[in-house]
Amino acid sequence: MLIINTGGTFNKRYDPIKGELFVPQDNRAIESIRTSLVMDISLQGILYKDSLEMDDHDRSVLAKTIAQSDEQIIIVVHGTDTMDLSARYVANLALEKVIVFTGAMIPFSIDPLEATANLSMAMGYAQNASNGVYIVMQGVMGRYDSVKKNKFAGKFEYV
Amino acid sequence: MLIINTGGTFNKRYDPIKGELFVPQDNRAIESIRTSLVMDISLQGILYKDSLEMDDHDRSVLAKTIAQSDEQIIIVVHGTDTMDLSARYVANLALEKVIVFTGAMIPFSIDPLEATANLSMAMGYAQNASNGVYIVMQGVMGRYDSVKKNKFAGKFEYV
Amino acid sequence: MLIINTGGTFNKRYDPIKGELFVPQDNRAIESIRTSLVMDISLQGILYKDSLEMDDHDRSVLAKTIAQSDEQIIIVVHGTDTMDLSARYVANLALEKVIVFTGAMIPFSIDPLEATANLSMAMGYAQNASNGVYIVMQGVMGRYDSVKKNKFAGKFEYV
Amino acid sequence: MLIINTGGTFNKRYDPIKGELFVPQDNRAIESIRTSLVMDISLQGILYKDSLEMDDHDRSVLAKTIAQSDEQIIIVVHGTDTMDLSARYVANLALEKVIVFTGAMIPFSIDPLEATANLSMAMGYAQNASNGVYIVMQGVMGRYDSVKKNKFAGKFEYV
Repeated sequence: MLIINTGGTFNKRYDPIKGELFVPQDNRAIESIRTSLVMDISLQGILYKDSLEMDDHDRSVLAKTIAQSDEQIIIVVHGTDTMDLSARYVANLALEKVIVFTGAMIPFSIDPLEATANLSMAMGYAQNASNGVYIVMQGVMGRYDSVKKNKFAGKFEYV
Repeated sequence: MLIINTGGTFNKRYDPIKGELFVPQDNRAIESIRTSLVMDISLQGILYKDSLEMDDHDRSVLAKTIAQSDEQIIIVVHGTDTMDLSARYVANLALEKVIVFTGAMIPFSIDPLEATANLSMAMGYAQNASNGVYIVMQGVMGRYDSVKKNKFAGKFEYV
Repeated sequence: MLIINTGGTFNKRYDPIKGELFVPQDNRAIESIRTSLVMDISLQGILYKDSLEMDDHDRSVLAKTIAQSDEQIIIVVHGTDTMDLSARYVANLALEKVIVFTGAMIPFSIDPLEATANLSMAMGYAQNASNGVYIVMQGVMGRYDSVKKNKFAGKFEYV
Repeated sequence: MLIINTGGTFNKRYDPIKGELFVPQDNRAIESIRTSLVMDISLQGILYKDSLEMDDHDRSVLAKTIAQSDEQIIIVVHGTDTMDLSARYVANLALEKVIVFTGAMIPFSIDPLEATANLSMAMGYAQNASNGVYIVMQGVMGRYDSVKKNKFAGKFEYV
């Protein structure tokens, strides 16, 4: 299993000098969760962006990273706003892998529960899934085109 | 999906007057995690015991609770010391359900990460599993008889 | 002892729908800290502003609230950017009270330690202080004109 | 200012293998709080005991540590059960110092708020106190013989 961290709200931390949240260029949030686990999980950080700032070049970088990995199961930590676009982009490549997108509505640094629950549920979901691209967020789990963010409610839901 | 809470370390809280940890007669830890999720999850508390104090009568109560539930997917939060015994007891009944045992080595009230990760991974694992009894702990996931607690290392591992 | 909450970073929380921090119109952060204490502390919320948005009218509201209180010891939770201006404004009134300004560089909701330490240290400091206006932040404690925020370092220091 | 850490509930952590809380031979809890502060605070660990296990020899070690310090202000982190005995022991030496005892009813590792509030309030209280021995716990602050633990309520109170 490989976790690819692309950034997004999941990873945001507070900068006390600027007084704002930012996407750090590291994987500290995921590493904190991984400490609780004994399984062997690889972790690779790329892009480190708010998903509103991702474009198709970024998506091609993500897709290449997935395609080149030796791992059969890939978890992608991603911003929630364009998670569906990146998932569709990757799905179009029809890779012979289990690829599960997840993220968080609240930064791990502010409330670790949702981020930890989402990442862990994605990992559990991937374990028994057949090849394909999925989204697992807030307990909503399914094929990438069956799960969508409701931006007004701030929650994910089945399409 | 139904979560059955039997107690165990997962739920322990600190009593400042006695100066010790105890298994509370409530489901507060699981409820805290459930708040982060939008999926519909039922929750039922029974026994509320340290698993070292569970006997076969307790296991029959657990088995009956599982058998009588309308839910197809059952997550059992259980103490780690006799999780394997209870899982075997339930497996012997060959119920037509997906039943995943989980718990925590550290109480949710002390470190929410491991407990949240275990419960969420169990839920994700259950979603795609075929009928049977499983244990999901600390990223180790498999049939109940393929996963075991290593009491010296304080970690779960594959048999 | 009366705690007057005017808002500021101390109180900020995350809005998952807008994806940003905001100053809530409540005193939840201070109430969480107060739960750990057994002493009788009054709490009054006013303004609820980022201190960069405070003007002299706001400061007159704060001053009036302090002057009208029956309490001899007043703790003011305030944003850090203009804490010195508000403290000077109040000091010019030469009230016969102990008035201690405090706040936080990191929201309580993100890291409870600094906010809890600052508020509690301000309360301890006030207990033995003679009448006057003081600032207590991050372990730096003194008369309002002897303590200043270093905006580049993101830390308070003695003038 | 010097913080002397003697152990007690304040410092207790959970041992996942034994399944119990223990007093660690380190100062990690106090160090975590100190990170939020910019003031220069020395820290010295001695004894590392549950205060029910402290005897007069231990108290003489504590008294000697205080007497030999160059610091004028001493904060003693101590278990709550015999905090009054140790404070009286030290008070009998009539040292020309400000000595404030504090601790916690709930371990910092379980709930950081009370421990952080108590230590920080003790530090603020000490800043303006005249020489003497004091207890500061849960917002209750005064001379060592005016503050007492109510073991039935699990709270400190004025005598």
